[in-house]
Amino acid sequence: MKIDKIIEKMDQNDLKTIIILKPENIAYVTGFYPSSIAILILKDEPVLFSSKMDLEEAHQKSSIAVEEFKSLSELRKTLQATIQGKVGVEYSMSMGTYRKLCGELPVELTHIIEDFRAIKSADEIKKIKGAIKIAEDSFKNLDLAVSEDNLAAQIEYNMRSAGSIKPSFETIVASGPRSSLPHASTTSKPLESPLMIDWGALYQNYASDMTRTLIRGGEKEEEIFSIVLEAQQKAIEAIKPGVKASYIDEVARGVIEDYGYGDNFIHSTGHGVGLEIHEKPSLSFKSDEILEKGMVVTVEPGIYLEGKLGIRVEDMVLVKNQAQVLTHLPREILF
Amino acid sequence: MKIDKIIEKMDQNDLKTIIILKPENIAYVTGFYPSSIAILILKDEPVLFSSKMDLEEAHQKSSIAVEEFKSLSELRKTLQATIQGKVGVEYSMSMGTYRKLCGELPVELTHIIEDFRAIKSADEIKKIKGAIKIAEDSFKNLDLAVSEDNLAAQIEYNMRSAGSIKPSFETIVASGPRSSLPHASTTSKPLESPLMIDWGALYQNYASDMTRTLIRGGEKEEEIFSIVLEAQQKAIEAIKPGVKASYIDEVARGVIEDYGYGDNFIHSTGHGVGLEIHEKPSLSFKSDEILEKGMVVTVEPGIYLEGKLGIRVEDMVLVKNQAQVLTHLPREILF
Repeated sequence: MKIDKIIEKMDQNDLKTIIILKPENIAYVTGFYPSSIAILILKDEPVLFSSKMDLEEAHQKSSIAVEEFKSLSELRKTLQATIQGKVGVEYSMSMGTYRKLCGELPVELTHIIEDFRAIKSADEIKKIKGAIKIAEDSFKNLDLAVSEDNLAAQIEYNMRSAGSIKPSFETIVASGPRSSLPHASTTSKPLESPLMIDWGALYQNYASDMTRTLIRGGEKEEEIFSIVLEAQQKAIEAIKPGVKASYIDEVARGVIEDYGYGDNFIHSTGHGVGLEIHEKPSLSFKSDEILEKGMVVTVEPGIYLEGKLGIRVEDMVLVKNQAQVLTHLPREILF
Repeated sequence: MKIDKIIEKMDQNDLKTIIILKPENIAYVTGFYPSSIAILILKDEPVLFSSKMDLEEAHQKSSIAVEEFKSLSELRKTLQATIQGKVGVEYSMSMGTYRKLCGELPVELTHIIEDFRAIKSADEIKKIKGAIKIAEDSFKNLDLAVSEDNLAAQIEYNMRSAGSIKPSFETIVASGPRSSLPHASTTSKPLESPLMIDWGALYQNYASDMTRTLIRGGEKEEEIFSIVLEAQQKAIEAIKPGVKASYIDEVARGVIEDYGYGDNFIHSTGHGVGLEIHEKPSLSFKSDEILEKGMVVTVEPGIYLEGKLGIRVEDMVLVKNQAQVLTHLPREILF
C-alpha cells in the first residue's frame, strides 16, 4: 500500500506528521484532486480536510477519511493539541499558511511525497501515455494558414474535446523570429518558419509535454535543426538507471557547445513530468539527482538566436534499463 | 507614478524593501509578466531579476531595471549585504524560497501590492472589459447537442482564437445532477438540464469570470432559479462605496435563507477579479474589507441540491457610486 510506504519513510525521517496542501500531493496520496483548499494531515491515522464545496466529490474519491475544513485557526488548535515531535511541511507551503497554521510548531521542510512521485507506477505510466496520446492526436490535420493564436486554439480544442480538462501548461506557438523566445505567448501574427509548438495535455491529472519545430528549410534552419537533433539523440542514449541527471544535461550541452552554440542553449535539458508539468528529477547542471527506473523525463535541447530563430525538439522518455521514448510523432516535420 | 505611491506606502509601513515573487504582483508593478522565476526587489532603486529565458522580453516590457537572475543563494548574499531594517515578503512566498533567500533577515508578511491591486485604474478596467468581451463573444452560436467536454472545447476555442492565451480558470460545464458540484470538471456526458457554465478569459493578463445556468424549465428548476436571481439582484443593489464586503454576502445569503435554502448556498457571494481570478476584496462573511470605488467583484449566489441540481448566476460588477454591472449576457437563457 502506498500510504504504508509513505508512513515508513516518515518514520525513517523521524517525522510523525506531515501537513500537505499541494493539490498534486493530495491527489497522489488520496486519489482525490481538490478544486479548492484542502489539507491532508498525514500520520498514523491520516485525515483529509476538504472545503465544503468539494466535500461531495472528496467523499466519493478519497482513499483517506474526509472531514470538512473550517478554518486554519481551528485546524491549528487541533494540531497543537495532538501533534508530537517535528512536523513535516512542504517546500511549497506559503508563508501566510505557515504563520496561521503552524506558528509555534517545530517544522521541517520535506519533499518525501515529491520523491515518491518521481518514480512512476504502472498505473501512472498508463495515465501519462493517455496524456501523450491526446496531445499527439490533437496535432493531426491542423490548418497552418492561420495565426499563432488560432493554431493554439485548434490544438487545445482537439485536446479538450478528447477529455483533457486543460492544457498541461500554456501552449506555445512561436513562429519566425519569435521562436527565439523559449516561452513566448501566442500572438495574432500569421505563422511563418520556423514554427515552434510546445504543448501538452492533462489526462486523469497526469501531464504530457512535447515540442516540435516545423521548418521550411533554408541553410541556417537546417544546420541548427540537425545540431539540436544530434544533442537530443545523444542525451537520450545516455539515459539509464544509476546515471546522474546532470550528466544528461552535460551530454546534450556538450554537443551544442562543440558546434559553437553553447551560449544559445539557455535552459536545462529536461525535467520530470507527472502530476506536475515540472517535477523531479531535473536534467540540469544544478541537479544532484540520480536517474532511476520508472522516472519519466523530457529531453528538450534548443538553440535560440535572439531576434532570428529558435529551434527546440522535445520528447518524453521513461527510464527502464535504457531510455524508452514515449512520444511518437516524427521529429522532422516540414512546414 | 505607481511606483512612487508604492514606495510611499512602504515608508508608512516602515518597510525599506519588499521582495516580490508572485508573477501577478511583478506584472502589476513592472508591466512585464514573467513566464519563469523572477524576483522583484522593491526599494528606492528597484531591480527586477529575471531568468535568462525571459531576459529578452523582460528588457522590452519592464518599466524597472532588469538584471539576470542567477540563483537564490547568490541573490541572498546581495540582500544580506545591502538590506537595512525589516523586509516585506508576500504571504504567498513559499517556505522553500523563504529559507533559501531570507534565512536570517527580519521579515514581515505584507499585502501592500495586493491592496493597491484591489482598486483598478481606468486602464485596468479597460483590460477587464476586454476579457469580458472575449468571454461573452465566445458564448454565441454554441452547439449544445454535445458533451460537457466538447461544449467547454468550443468556448475555449473561441476565446483562444480571439487572443486569450488561456481561460482565466478551468471552464466548468456541469449538467444535470452534476450541476450540484460547484467546481465540477467536465465529462464526456451529453448535456442535460440544468446546464451550468462558469467561464472566463484572460486579456492582457486580466481575467473575466461569469456563470450562466441554462434550464429547460420544470417547477423545481424555475423556483430555484428565481430565488438565485433575486439574491443576486438584491446583492448588486446593496453595493456602494463604504459598505462592508461581508454585508453583500449577508444580503444574498439572507434572501436564500428566507426561502429555506441557506444550507444549500455553500460558498461565498463573490470575490475581486483582476490580474488574478480571486483577489481582494472577498464578499464573504469572514471578510473585514470595505468596498471602495474602482473595485471589481463578482456577485455569484448559488443553490446546490446534492445529487439533484445546482443553479448559480454570476456577473462582474464595478464599484462606482453604485454598482455598474460589466457583464451583459442575459441571465435567463433557455436550454
